[in-house]
Amino acid sequence: MNTHETTAPAAPRQDARPSAAPAGPRLVAEARKEGVDAAVAAARRLITALLRSGDGTGADLDAVASQLDAVADRLTAGAPTVTDRLAEMWRGEGVTRHDPVTGPENALAPPLRLHGNEDRSVEGVVTLDLPYQGPPGHVHGGISALLLDHTLGVANHWGGPSGMTAELTLRYLRPTPLFEPLTVTGRQVSVDGSRIRTVGEISAGGRTCVTAEGLFINKQLPRPS
Amino acid sequence: MNTHETTAPAAPRQDARPSAAPAGPRLVAEARKEGVDAAVAAARRLITALLRSGDGTGADLDAVASQLDAVADRLTAGAPTVTDRLAEMWRGEGVTRHDPVTGPENALAPPLRLHGNEDRSVEGVVTLDLPYQGPPGHVHGGISALLLDHTLGVANHWGGPSGMTAELTLRYLRPTPLFEPLTVTGRQVSVDGSRIRTVGEISAGGRTCVTAEGLFINKQLPRPS
Repeated sequence: MNTHETTAPAAPRQDARPSAAPAGPRLVAEARKEGVDAAVAAARRLITALLRSGDGTGADLDAVASQLDAVADRLTAGAPTVTDRLAEMWRGEGVTRHDPVTGPENALAPPLRLHGNEDRSVEGVVTLDLPYQGPPGHVHGGISALLLDHTLGVANHWGGPSGMTAELTLRYLRPTPLFEPLTVTGRQVSVDGSRIRTVGEISAGGRTCVTAEGLFINKQLPRPS
Repeated sequence: MNTHETTAPAAPRQDARPSAAPAGPRLVAEARKEGVDAAVAAARRLITALLRSGDGTGADLDAVASQLDAVADRLTAGAPTVTDRLAEMWRGEGVTRHDPVTGPENALAPPLRLHGNEDRSVEGVVTLDLPYQGPPGHVHGGISALLLDHTLGVANHWGGPSGMTAELTLRYLRPTPLFEPLTVTGRQVSVDGSRIRTVGEISAGGRTCVTAEGLFINKQLPRPS
């Protein structure tokens, strides 16, 4: 079977289903206010600030580079081996902490905060800034694909069997704006043996911007140990 | 027409076509060794270092957070308005400097360095680290989609008319590894009126991991001014 797994959390499905709340339980890791999550939140602000600033402000960016390099050197020197770190990442709750969409330890992640709904769909709202730009003032089509691939994976974990993405089709109906709240949804629609079909979309102001249809295969890559 | 533009550079097509060189001209902005590009390169190292380190090393991550916040505050205070910055970004060579795939000013970009080939295809090699992880030790399926959407857009600029992504289909044939050189290619295959078809793939060690087929519509969003 030739497939590609989507990262998705081992969501606490049984325990966390809501009784009647309109917004269901959070399906992704909660960011902590201290430690690596705080440093990553600051790194995210910095990525945006660098893009908002650019080269023309007279800021001493070479000094900034030296400062950031020094922090990176210090952290790298103290880091575990990649093998050990991978094993640590994939234990327990770690699995939802590092991905590039929802992970509080990953500065690439906006992060998107996904909740499970009673109807087995998942949903999150996110506002994107300049790092996620494609066409002028709008979200990059590949970023929409990234958000949707991940959201479909989480929808599988929430709604039924989950697996690896085999095929993903995106349809771009209208440009997706930066700087405005975007609603990202996903929902598992069918399971036929090992074949799982899941759909999702991104909307802004109640209008659908991008839709996604995914075919997933019910298998997983082994976790490192 | 409901479509979504893919960021792609206004590549210097006519002037830069190679005569016989195996690797054609670079189609994306060259990173400078100083200024904002240097700061962004350091920010990229930092994003990876934070993920490689995690919370368990005893590093004073709250101090790191304060330091990064201070830099972000300083840059933000000196930055132009977003309107002015958008106008600046979309002038001249700026268009290839800030996207989340190839942009030297965007710390989300690995960055992927794409070159044009004689046969009108485009190609780049990139090795991805932990920020781009989906399944254990492998590239996130949505990251592959991001790289391919962008590469197909650049292939359109290199090979013929270009436009906005209307539809993108990804097929995941096998997991895409982290920490190994990945070859990313794109090639425009047909133009029928305003409908442009473009394909691409990501391979590792000579084996195809992900393929992409895109339908693009020959139009663009206006540039801010």
